[in-house]
Amino acid sequence: MNTILFRHINQFVSMGAKEFEEIILYFTPEKAAKKALLMHIGDTVLHDYFVLSGCLQMYFIDHEGMEHTVQFALKGWWLADYLALQKKKPTEFYIQAVENSVLLKLSPAKRDQLLCAYPKMESYFRAVYQIAYGTYQTRMKYILSYSKEEIYFKFRESFPEFVNSVPQYLIANYLGLSAEYVSKLRRKRIS
Amino acid sequence: MNTILFRHINQFVSMGAKEFEEIILYFTPEKAAKKALLMHIGDTVLHDYFVLSGCLQMYFIDHEGMEHTVQFALKGWWLADYLALQKKKPTEFYIQAVENSVLLKLSPAKRDQLLCAYPKMESYFRAVYQIAYGTYQTRMKYILSYSKEEIYFKFRESFPEFVNSVPQYLIANYLGLSAEYVSKLRRKRIS
Repeated sequence: MNTILFRHINQFVSMGAKEFEEIILYFTPEKAAKKALLMHIGDTVLHDYFVLSGCLQMYFIDHEGMEHTVQFALKGWWLADYLALQKKKPTEFYIQAVENSVLLKLSPAKRDQLLCAYPKMESYFRAVYQIAYGTYQTRMKYILSYSKEEIYFKFRESFPEFVNSVPQYLIANYLGLSAEYVSKLRRKRIS
Repeated sequence: MNTILFRHINQFVSMGAKEFEEIILYFTPEKAAKKALLMHIGDTVLHDYFVLSGCLQMYFIDHEGMEHTVQFALKGWWLADYLALQKKKPTEFYIQAVENSVLLKLSPAKRDQLLCAYPKMESYFRAVYQIAYGTYQTRMKYILSYSKEEIYFKFRESFPEFVNSVPQYLIANYLGLSAEYVSKLRRKRIS
């Protein structure tokens, strides 16, 4: 049994092992090698990914060719372009594996079937998206109220496991900082 | 019948007039005068607000006493501190009415009862939060890829109704710009 997803679901709704064995059939296990591209700009069939191990990154490339990280997903997190997924529109983002990752993939068709057959999965995803949405509200608070230096150190304090498992240049990119600036901050803190 | 909420629900799930008449009983109508404070930092009983007319603003005050707008809600939008609401923790934000507003208020207790009694409302809120979450992902794309000037004009293009109904200084605040800078941009575009 996939205990990571089973436990995650049971944080929000009550589900027994037997029912979970039915539900897990809707998901496709997938291994993604480091740097593998799982979603490409313009894709219309958008999967929702649950991370069992490793790390995913959602990013876009701006009109000057610069890559910007919008979001990461670590073990126990979901990741998709949720606006495009809901509206069945082409995505404007990419998703790639930051490191070798093991995932559960939910296709749009299977997702619709799952939500229809198991109403408690609507409750589960309602809670998951509500928290993700609320986390963005709080993220805006950080962006608007702290200096870049403060954001970096608060981020390190809040997510030490994350900072240790994701390359430094990607964290810098996610926080909107240059890799050189982050190196300078790290040296400053150590000295 | 409250047609605004009825139509909004029917964008996502199928609900007849009779069932809607049962559901509407869970909501409390509320009139909020301009500048009325509906949620205060530290509040633990957090209501979810649906805007029938007017406009709400969610904001926080930083350690230097500066007010920052995290989010607005216009007619047909929901607003709450969703992380605090889900985790039943005190909020770090304020919600106030930008102008005289008419609202439907859903208390935490009524919300739990509603979601339990009407599983299709789980589907409805799942879709609402999924879109709101996805909108934040797209908002991050704007913040990361455009200059402040470009963001202002793209915002005007995308939400003309909003720009016309919300005071200029609040839009500036929401976009992280000074009111003076926005006045300068407006003059520049007109000239």
